[in-house]
Amino acid sequence: MIGYLGPKSSFTYQATTSLFPNDAIQAFHSIPLCLESLANGEIESAIVPIENSLEGSVHTSMDYLFKSQGLTVTKEIILPIKQQLMGTATTPAMILSHPQALAQSQHFLTTHYPHVTLKETPSTTYAAEYVATHPNEALLAIASKEAAEAFALPIIAKDIQDNDQNQTRFWLIQKESITLKNTEPAQKLTLFVTLPQNQAGALHQILAVFAWRNIDLTKIESRPLKTSLGQYYFVIDIVVEQKEWVHYALEEIKLLGATIKPFGPYSILKATETL
Amino acid sequence: MIGYLGPKSSFTYQATTSLFPNDAIQAFHSIPLCLESLANGEIESAIVPIENSLEGSVHTSMDYLFKSQGLTVTKEIILPIKQQLMGTATTPAMILSHPQALAQSQHFLTTHYPHVTLKETPSTTYAAEYVATHPNEALLAIASKEAAEAFALPIIAKDIQDNDQNQTRFWLIQKESITLKNTEPAQKLTLFVTLPQNQAGALHQILAVFAWRNIDLTKIESRPLKTSLGQYYFVIDIVVEQKEWVHYALEEIKLLGATIKPFGPYSILKATETL
Repeated sequence: MIGYLGPKSSFTYQATTSLFPNDAIQAFHSIPLCLESLANGEIESAIVPIENSLEGSVHTSMDYLFKSQGLTVTKEIILPIKQQLMGTATTPAMILSHPQALAQSQHFLTTHYPHVTLKETPSTTYAAEYVATHPNEALLAIASKEAAEAFALPIIAKDIQDNDQNQTRFWLIQKESITLKNTEPAQKLTLFVTLPQNQAGALHQILAVFAWRNIDLTKIESRPLKTSLGQYYFVIDIVVEQKEWVHYALEEIKLLGATIKPFGPYSILKATETL
Repeated sequence: MIGYLGPKSSFTYQATTSLFPNDAIQAFHSIPLCLESLANGEIESAIVPIENSLEGSVHTSMDYLFKSQGLTVTKEIILPIKQQLMGTATTPAMILSHPQALAQSQHFLTTHYPHVTLKETPSTTYAAEYVATHPNEALLAIASKEAAEAFALPIIAKDIQDNDQNQTRFWLIQKESITLKNTEPAQKLTLFVTLPQNQAGALHQILAVFAWRNIDLTKIESRPLKTSLGQYYFVIDIVVEQKEWVHYALEEIKLLGATIKPFGPYSILKATETL
C-alpha cells in the first residue's frame, strides 16, 4: 500500500498516480500522519511534497525527515503545478483555495478579481468540493484540472498560476530495510548536515569538500534546530555522478566533526499532468 | 508614526512598545501592508517579525525586503515568546490560536488536550478576543499574557510553549534616506545575495571571503528566487566587528559577480516581556 498526502485529486495524488498508475493507494490528512504510518509499517511507501519553486521547502516534510529513523528516499517526482479557476458563479462573492494556491495565483487574482474575498481552505480539493456542493453560494475555487473533473466544475480560467515554471518536488519515501529495487541510475543525494559548531568556518570547510571535487550542489538551505535562535541544520542536495568521489567527500565531512544523515541516492522522474 | 504587524497585544506589539514606549504607533493587518505604508512615506518606521527560533524565517518579511527599494534595518529586537492558555471553559470543545502558536505548544497540547479540536485564527489576539466575546461556547485560547490582560481572561496554564528558548527576532525598518540616528554601535549586517550562477563553487567562494577574514556568519539561508526549482537567493547574517574588513569582503563578493543587497548595519536589543 502506498500512502500519500491527500485528499484525492490533490497534486500529491497526481504525483503518486503518475508513478504508480495501477497500485493500491491511501490518502492521509497530513504529512506527519502519512510518514508515521510508513515508520510503523502500516504502508510500504509514502509520497509527500518536498519543495515548490515559488513557495520554497515544505518545512513539515523536511523537519519530520530530519528527526526520523530508518527512512530513505528512492525517487523524486517533479510535477508542473497548474492552477485552474473553476465554478459557475459569474460575479463571485468569494474565491476559495489552499493558501499556497492563492499565493501562486496572486497576480491573476489582483488583476481580475481585485475586490473579491479570498478564503483559505485546508486543500485545493476541499475548495473544489465545497464550491460543487454549495451551488447557491456565489463561489469559485482554485484547484487542479483533476479536481474540476472529479467535481464536475467548469474551468473558467485556465493555468492562472503566476509562473510557467511553477513546479513541485515530491519524494517517494520507504524504509531503508525494505527499499524496493531501483534499477535506474541514482541522480541525486540529499544530506541533512549538523555542524560541530554553527560557525561560518565550518560550513565553508564542508562546501570546500564538495567544491574541489567538482561535486555540484543543487540546493543548500538552513532550517532551525528548534533549540535557540542561530542554531541550524542544513539541507544540501548534491548531484551524484561519480560514487567514489561522493563517498570520500562524505567521509571527510564526518572527519570535520559534522553529523550527516543522507537521504537517497534517488533517481528523478519528470511527471506530466495526468489529464 | 511607527507601524507594526498588529493587532494590539500581538508579540510584534510587545516588541514595538519595548522599543518605543511613548510614541504613536499604528497596527497593520499584514506585513506587506505595513512595509508598503513605510515605502509610501505614510509612516516613518515599521516593526515586523523576521525569524522565530522554532518556526524559522518569516518568509513574507524576507521576500518583501529582498524585492524592496530604499529600505534598511536599524535595529533588531529579540523577544522571548511565551504562550499562555486562557479562558474559563473547564472541558473545552475547541482551542483557538494562530498556527505558529499552536505549533509552538504542540507538546503541551498533545499531552493535556489530545482530543480537543485545534482551530487556527489569524492572530493570537484574535483567538483571545473571540474566546472573551463568546463566553457561552466552551473555548480556550493560546495567546500572550498581554492579550489575557487586555481581554480579562484568566490564564489556566502558564508558559506552555515547547521550548524555553523560544524567541522571535523583529526588525525596525526605515527608509535609507531618512534613517534615524542610531548612536549605538552596529552589531550585525544582513546580506541578500544573488549568485552569478547558482552553483556550489560560487557559494563556496563567497563563504571563503568571510572565512579567511574571521568574519562570523550567524545565519545562512536559501530562499527560492520564484523563477524555477533550484534557483535561490541567500540571506547571510554577519557579525560586524571591524568595519574595514567587512567593507573589503563586500567589495570582493561584488567582484565575484554576485549581487548584494545589504540591510543594516543594525544594533540588537534584547527585550523582556512588558508585563
